[in-house]
Amino acid sequence: MPWLDNIRRVTPYVPGEQPQGAVIKLNTNECPYPPSPKVGEALASMSADNLRKYPDPTSETLCAALADYYGLTPEQIFVGTGSDDCLAQCFLTFFAGKKPILFPDVTYSFYKVWAEVYRIPYETIPLNDDFTVDPKAYGRENGGIILANPNAPTGIATDLNVIEAIVAENPNSVVIVDEAYIDFGGETALSLLPGYENLVIVRTMSKSRALAGMRIGYVMASPTLIKYLNDVKFSVNSYTMNMPSLLAGVAAIKDDAYFRQTVARIIATRERTKDELKKLNFGFPDSATNFIFATHPTINAAELFDYLREREIYVRYFSAPRLKDYLRITVGTGQEMDTLLRTLAERIR
Amino acid sequence: MPWLDNIRRVTPYVPGEQPQGAVIKLNTNECPYPPSPKVGEALASMSADNLRKYPDPTSETLCAALADYYGLTPEQIFVGTGSDDCLAQCFLTFFAGKKPILFPDVTYSFYKVWAEVYRIPYETIPLNDDFTVDPKAYGRENGGIILANPNAPTGIATDLNVIEAIVAENPNSVVIVDEAYIDFGGETALSLLPGYENLVIVRTMSKSRALAGMRIGYVMASPTLIKYLNDVKFSVNSYTMNMPSLLAGVAAIKDDAYFRQTVARIIATRERTKDELKKLNFGFPDSATNFIFATHPTINAAELFDYLREREIYVRYFSAPRLKDYLRITVGTGQEMDTLLRTLAERIR
Repeated sequence: MPWLDNIRRVTPYVPGEQPQGAVIKLNTNECPYPPSPKVGEALASMSADNLRKYPDPTSETLCAALADYYGLTPEQIFVGTGSDDCLAQCFLTFFAGKKPILFPDVTYSFYKVWAEVYRIPYETIPLNDDFTVDPKAYGRENGGIILANPNAPTGIATDLNVIEAIVAENPNSVVIVDEAYIDFGGETALSLLPGYENLVIVRTMSKSRALAGMRIGYVMASPTLIKYLNDVKFSVNSYTMNMPSLLAGVAAIKDDAYFRQTVARIIATRERTKDELKKLNFGFPDSATNFIFATHPTINAAELFDYLREREIYVRYFSAPRLKDYLRITVGTGQEMDTLLRTLAERIR
Repeated sequence: MPWLDNIRRVTPYVPGEQPQGAVIKLNTNECPYPPSPKVGEALASMSADNLRKYPDPTSETLCAALADYYGLTPEQIFVGTGSDDCLAQCFLTFFAGKKPILFPDVTYSFYKVWAEVYRIPYETIPLNDDFTVDPKAYGRENGGIILANPNAPTGIATDLNVIEAIVAENPNSVVIVDEAYIDFGGETALSLLPGYENLVIVRTMSKSRALAGMRIGYVMASPTLIKYLNDVKFSVNSYTMNMPSLLAGVAAIKDDAYFRQTVARIIATRERTKDELKKLNFGFPDSATNFIFATHPTINAAELFDYLREREIYVRYFSAPRLKDYLRITVGTGQEMDTLLRTLAERIR
């Protein structure tokens, strides 16, 4: 293979398993409830004949709907095929300097992968022993910072004043706050946007809006940063969002009542599940997300993972040193959690 | 803006205008006919409730359908959100060396943009005066080669023996053949795949399969190259293809009779349009695509572009030195071409 020298060789991110059929799937933080019925209506209204034309490359309708919802201008919004696409474009656009970017040692494992595929130097900053963020550690020289808030896979929300301190102390860097799970808890950094031109917020419709299958993410930032992001996007793929995703995204964002109801149901199930897990002796950081990062004092996490998997209950297990004693359990329906808890109890009691 | 040093600044590709409403749109090489009715049926069968789940990150059903159609194995297929996404991923994956990549001076203008956004060194090789490819010019040392066949915006097909000579002479490089328009003419390089592990073929469903609005492109190559491409894809965005695009892609590729009929109609219209344009004194390279690259001996192309645009007929004009005397005219419906020809005749005669 003489052309091998020209190949970019990388170790890719490994997404959670996508088993088919009647299993209990608590491994990829999907929403246990369907998207707003308005999404189905919007898709049904689409004429397949129109697919012969390119979609709007600026995604104007979706950007406008998001701007309206969050009280921003459309020039402050960027959309992509899932927050992974948004984050990848942000890494490519905002982390193009020579200094290392910073992110926690325990966080979304894709950050390291993006840094590696785009050849971005990086340093990981250890979280405190209790998995909280130490803002002082982000004072060192850097080419950019990314933090997930709430963090994954721990589920812990970082106080907004901690986020603000990091953004304020790093005026020379773009600071990305990945708010994939913010609808389930914690405080959004949206209120900081007017004050900080170097702040970037990334969101997804895959979790709280139940549209993982449609691939819709979005970025909120100053018009200046969004302009640079669009320049890179239009240098990679002009037409990322297909017609169905534009229609579905607008419909989902406009049905706020449904969204609030769905999130409230998931939060209620999460709180009940926490109580029940405690009774089984599990420990976990207080989750502000739609998953619980749980550890058991006497039973090995990898063993529990296998035990559940054999019973067709899929949770997520990470073998990294600081994570190996935990299971990341997505909050499913009440019934799914009952089955999970009953199955765990059978093993534990 | 102190963070500016960390920003990747680029000059993006500018897609053709997407005017709304009742205009004649011959500027982005869209198909004038709708996609197969099977596409609409497949989309109608999709339950919006399933969108809560992530799509299959491996796009297995679509890869299998494409492999079956082209007589390849699924390990030889990669899919992306349009051929632009496929090409961007190919540039990132296969053109990661230090030597300059090569492509013609007159070709799809996105090649230069991808090279710039990914900081890939490149050299452009002038086409001959008649816009044909000079294979000898691709003998120089390089880090990769990309050729569109048929080429855009000229519409000219390159003989397969010329393509093969370039692939064979460059065993140290990956050679990408961008076959976005191959369904309308020219000879595909598919027959060369078994013989050359360094060959990559990129296709799209946006033109001949009328699915521009759905964003579906695909890559055919050796399993080794597809594996490297997937490693990079899974390092950028695991879930690029949403559920509707997977369903639509499979339905489109399976309805071969409809596809052949659509392509035959477009070719017939193209040939008739060529005859009529000749009568109006236009000259053009012989088009093997769904567009005609036409120049007029007495009337300035930029002027004709404005003249047509004022009459709500959109064609594409490029101001680059070797292109400035031409209009790129997409082949529309017979009726659209009649209107175009009548409007041109009013100006010319």
